[in-house]
Amino acid sequence: MQQKFGLAIHGGAGTILKSEMNEEKELAYKSALSAALKAGYDALSNGKSSLDAVELAVNSLENCPLFNAGKGAVFTANGKFELDASIMSGKDLMAGAVSGINNIANPVSLARKVFEKTPHVFMAGQGAMEFAKSLGITQEPDAYFFTQQRYDQWQELKGTSEVSLDHTPKPIGTVGAVAYDQYGNIAAATSTGGMTNKQFGRVGDTPMIGAGTYANNKTCAVSATGHGEYFIRAVVAYDVACLMEYAGLSLADACNKVVNDKLLKMGGEGGIIALNAAGEICLSFNSEGMYRGMVREDGNMFTAIYK
Amino acid sequence: MQQKFGLAIHGGAGTILKSEMNEEKELAYKSALSAALKAGYDALSNGKSSLDAVELAVNSLENCPLFNAGKGAVFTANGKFELDASIMSGKDLMAGAVSGINNIANPVSLARKVFEKTPHVFMAGQGAMEFAKSLGITQEPDAYFFTQQRYDQWQELKGTSEVSLDHTPKPIGTVGAVAYDQYGNIAAATSTGGMTNKQFGRVGDTPMIGAGTYANNKTCAVSATGHGEYFIRAVVAYDVACLMEYAGLSLADACNKVVNDKLLKMGGEGGIIALNAAGEICLSFNSEGMYRGMVREDGNMFTAIYK
Repeated sequence: MQQKFGLAIHGGAGTILKSEMNEEKELAYKSALSAALKAGYDALSNGKSSLDAVELAVNSLENCPLFNAGKGAVFTANGKFELDASIMSGKDLMAGAVSGINNIANPVSLARKVFEKTPHVFMAGQGAMEFAKSLGITQEPDAYFFTQQRYDQWQELKGTSEVSLDHTPKPIGTVGAVAYDQYGNIAAATSTGGMTNKQFGRVGDTPMIGAGTYANNKTCAVSATGHGEYFIRAVVAYDVACLMEYAGLSLADACNKVVNDKLLKMGGEGGIIALNAAGEICLSFNSEGMYRGMVREDGNMFTAIYK
Repeated sequence: MQQKFGLAIHGGAGTILKSEMNEEKELAYKSALSAALKAGYDALSNGKSSLDAVELAVNSLENCPLFNAGKGAVFTANGKFELDASIMSGKDLMAGAVSGINNIANPVSLARKVFEKTPHVFMAGQGAMEFAKSLGITQEPDAYFFTQQRYDQWQELKGTSEVSLDHTPKPIGTVGAVAYDQYGNIAAATSTGGMTNKQFGRVGDTPMIGAGTYANNKTCAVSATGHGEYFIRAVVAYDVACLMEYAGLSLADACNKVVNDKLLKMGGEGGIIALNAAGEICLSFNSEGMYRGMVREDGNMFTAIYK
């Protein structure tokens, strides 16, 4: 019997208008999503853990300049790149997070090192950078993260107090992955560059375990993308888990309740990807679109952008 | 009819051994707890909001050198003070948090400014410091935060990779307050200096909405203190709220489940204070002791240290 495993990813949710896209752009996004799915799929089919799979899938999205994480991150108000990420293992509830880091190509891998190499969960700013240095992680120059598109977006807002939710046509950034493996373990990971022209030092939901990322074999693995402030206040990722564990909702009902009822009422635009150890997968968003994809052990890849 | 209101506070939980205390020390702690209760009580009895009351009570604890928050904070591995705080309003789910800040006497007041003056929830490090500067908040010299006791604790661990949970006799730091006011609104706030000899940049549960602090009029207001890494992974504060809302547990049962069952099984030492808009109050901990206190509209103050 073939082992069961699967993976879902997102590359940000928001106002992705078909009118502002073209065939070439759509193809580029879909092929980047497929590449990330393949990275996770290959890991899972080679017997690697769900934790490995979500890290590798997110790495693939971080390395792609189309998404607002790693290479291609948005500019902060002072023209820098500030990256946040987190990762959680549903088997043992181990979790790692970093925020306010610069010049690290793969923040999610650094987040994983936090719980593997220290007694801590969350490392921020200069301290997280010193930690990266102590591990011998290469620092990339600012130029590595530069994309003309993000620069132009920043120029539009620079000097104003406006912050923008990242992509053009403006989805609300962030990439993420959730996976279940053949051992029955699930995991989640999320990585972001935040919001264009955001105030230096602003932390969103991405590095917050319970808000942007959560995984527990008992319930679900969740990675969120959206207007982070609302996602923090609603403790989005853990809320899905609690609705399943305490209120007895199915994965799909819990996701729908959080995204299309609770967040919508607060005004929180965005979406989540979620799955459980039984292999149910849910891709849920209340915005115009969400870059998303999923694959199971049969290898058939699904990718989509709009509703 | 007299209006109903109330307040509970904590000053850290952990291994507070009676054998390592003396009458004078106990009296000093209890009088500091009473002063913080009085600050919150005065606010509430003068018709101020629960949000004001928790801020003022926490300010009082931050200003007291006995507790690991504001003045009296512990030393990090590189001999600095790094402060974290958060605050949440149960009426509208507005929340603010700061982490990795230095030289700010009252971090919880800066956390409140984050949601009052910016579109953000969470500001960290240098960016949070620039935000404080832009508000004209006075920066205190390092000497303001210095206490001989914390210095001696740091000297014991300096150069080792050991981190210590703060007070001597070693409770696991952090101060906090929860309050309900005569308008039926509840709020929670938490503030800390973290762990002695902690790695520079480590963020604990204190600034994390959902982990160290949570408030929602529908359910409860919670402030946590303990071994932060476990409190993050267990999303402690929001878990109490979810057990009430989704599983129908009472405030007391929800607190007991989280502190004496779930956290205990994970190995997470510490405690929480919680209350709801109906005026139920719960002070729950799985450690040897927790500096704690509560008061209701009658003005009778309760303070305690041990089990």
